[in-house]
Amino acid sequence: MKAITITEPGGPEVLTWTDVPDPVPGPGEVLVEVAASAVNRADLMQRQGFYEPPPGASAYPGLEVSGRIAALGTGVSGWSVGDEVCALLGGGGYAEKVAVPAGQLLPVPEGVGLVDAAGLPEVVSTVWSNVFLISHLRPGETLLVHGGSSGIGTMAIQLAKAVGARVAVTAGTEDKLRYCGELGADILINYREQDFVEELKKATEGAGADVILDNMGAKYLDRNVQALAVNGRLAIIGLQGGIKGELNLNALLMKRAAVTAASLRARPLSEKTSIVAAVREHVWPLIAAGKVRPIIDRTLPMSEAAAAHRVLEESGHIGKVLLTL
Amino acid sequence: MKAITITEPGGPEVLTWTDVPDPVPGPGEVLVEVAASAVNRADLMQRQGFYEPPPGASAYPGLEVSGRIAALGTGVSGWSVGDEVCALLGGGGYAEKVAVPAGQLLPVPEGVGLVDAAGLPEVVSTVWSNVFLISHLRPGETLLVHGGSSGIGTMAIQLAKAVGARVAVTAGTEDKLRYCGELGADILINYREQDFVEELKKATEGAGADVILDNMGAKYLDRNVQALAVNGRLAIIGLQGGIKGELNLNALLMKRAAVTAASLRARPLSEKTSIVAAVREHVWPLIAAGKVRPIIDRTLPMSEAAAAHRVLEESGHIGKVLLTL
Repeated sequence: MKAITITEPGGPEVLTWTDVPDPVPGPGEVLVEVAASAVNRADLMQRQGFYEPPPGASAYPGLEVSGRIAALGTGVSGWSVGDEVCALLGGGGYAEKVAVPAGQLLPVPEGVGLVDAAGLPEVVSTVWSNVFLISHLRPGETLLVHGGSSGIGTMAIQLAKAVGARVAVTAGTEDKLRYCGELGADILINYREQDFVEELKKATEGAGADVILDNMGAKYLDRNVQALAVNGRLAIIGLQGGIKGELNLNALLMKRAAVTAASLRARPLSEKTSIVAAVREHVWPLIAAGKVRPIIDRTLPMSEAAAAHRVLEESGHIGKVLLTL
Repeated sequence: MKAITITEPGGPEVLTWTDVPDPVPGPGEVLVEVAASAVNRADLMQRQGFYEPPPGASAYPGLEVSGRIAALGTGVSGWSVGDEVCALLGGGGYAEKVAVPAGQLLPVPEGVGLVDAAGLPEVVSTVWSNVFLISHLRPGETLLVHGGSSGIGTMAIQLAKAVGARVAVTAGTEDKLRYCGELGADILINYREQDFVEELKKATEGAGADVILDNMGAKYLDRNVQALAVNGRLAIIGLQGGIKGELNLNALLMKRAAVTAASLRARPLSEKTSIVAAVREHVWPLIAAGKVRPIIDRTLPMSEAAAAHRVLEESGHIGKVLLTL
């Protein structure tokens, strides 16, 4: 088969569409013939040599795919050859075929096309595990989403609104903010022109955010703590603004607040399986009901993965960038 | 009545046993005739002028008492004049009488004397809310308790052992560590002579602590994160080592770990009521069964509160220091 390989750490140009051996599904795995994959920021870091795949994962980039089941490994039940699926991966999605543990498979949800489904597993699992399973966002609470127009952001807005929360977002352009508003975001903050702590406080009568979904890490740590409400929870899922930051423990203590950080990719199979099961139970019905949908910025041929990486690096996109076969 | 008042911020000598007006129980409150109170570190900070009582709380120090109900405010049910009780307070425990919201009352537990019961409410509520309600310590997990021989520490050891967890403690003398061992602690670390991260890793085959109960704040923040296991939870309840510390978010993210900080005193009545109810349901039966008991270092007359504060400042005690009438 063909796959995108990383010839050496570097810019988008190191992504090469190459002949590689077919993967073989092990016990408990299925082989998926890929229809599409999607680009995540982690893929860009992996390409640059900053993010080793976890032990046992494919060396090719790609944390999610959609496609059809081509073969079943031993001990797999509940799935058949030919089923249309999407899947959360530890890697290997930028390829014609990929072997996936059955616990990381989801059916293509009702009302979503086979290609578009490739944009769901990573964002839905990340948002559900962080905002709901870890941070327990409740109806009536306020969620602040940094990078509201990203793949993660557009999914977080929709899921939080679907459960009856209020949503604030930050983004860097008026176009992006308008789109977030159309998806349901209530409070729109242009981080280039406004102070998000101040704007959020203004919009919540001084209360702040009950949950913050953050991709910036150190750069926003102090301001995120300032922006938290009493009993607030800061969920960090990315470190685009650095890894070491000063934490004001007194502010945290006065608010009885929590700071959590979690990456999906490094979780063991058992945890991924339980997150995927929760997603299927709680999110798939919302998609089938038309309340939540994948937001796709554009679709490029997988052999042009380099161009797709440039799209993410320029940050002009809204939602997911897909790679199709 | 008489109460200990703080004439001005300062050393133990500013604590003065003075005539003051009797408190009057408001709606939903009871008046307790105090048998004993207990000294907490927060009292020392309040005496020094670093810890304002929360709005509505008594200006006198004292976060817990035992005694007998002397009168009921309007709307109180389930309690009678003469009942032997202990209570969690927002302040005012260093006094002959104190008015207490009924939701913060507990019966004196079976098998515990009236005076000794004064040493229970604050430590039990703090440990239960942080280690169990916030950090969800589970049987088989490892809890690291800093300051294992303190009032909080001796209660944390007992409660964690009672639910089937493994317990590591730090303390500064061999005597204190020996006592922690007698209470059930499995891993004893002398923080003056040993590196607690290294010792804990050695004793847990590299895994680290699932939950850490910390009173040091900034000074231990980085090492506490190093000492956490995957999915670990750091619960900060004191800032004796400073309020601002550098947090390594990458380490937190790789471990999918959480940092929480919470003070009991600032919580609203509704939260205190629910913590006290949980304590009565889960901890009181353990006390009645003899599995958990108050650890009392010494008992002094309340009029000698200054001497009691000196005991805590010298850190030679093990368990609680009580003030009796």
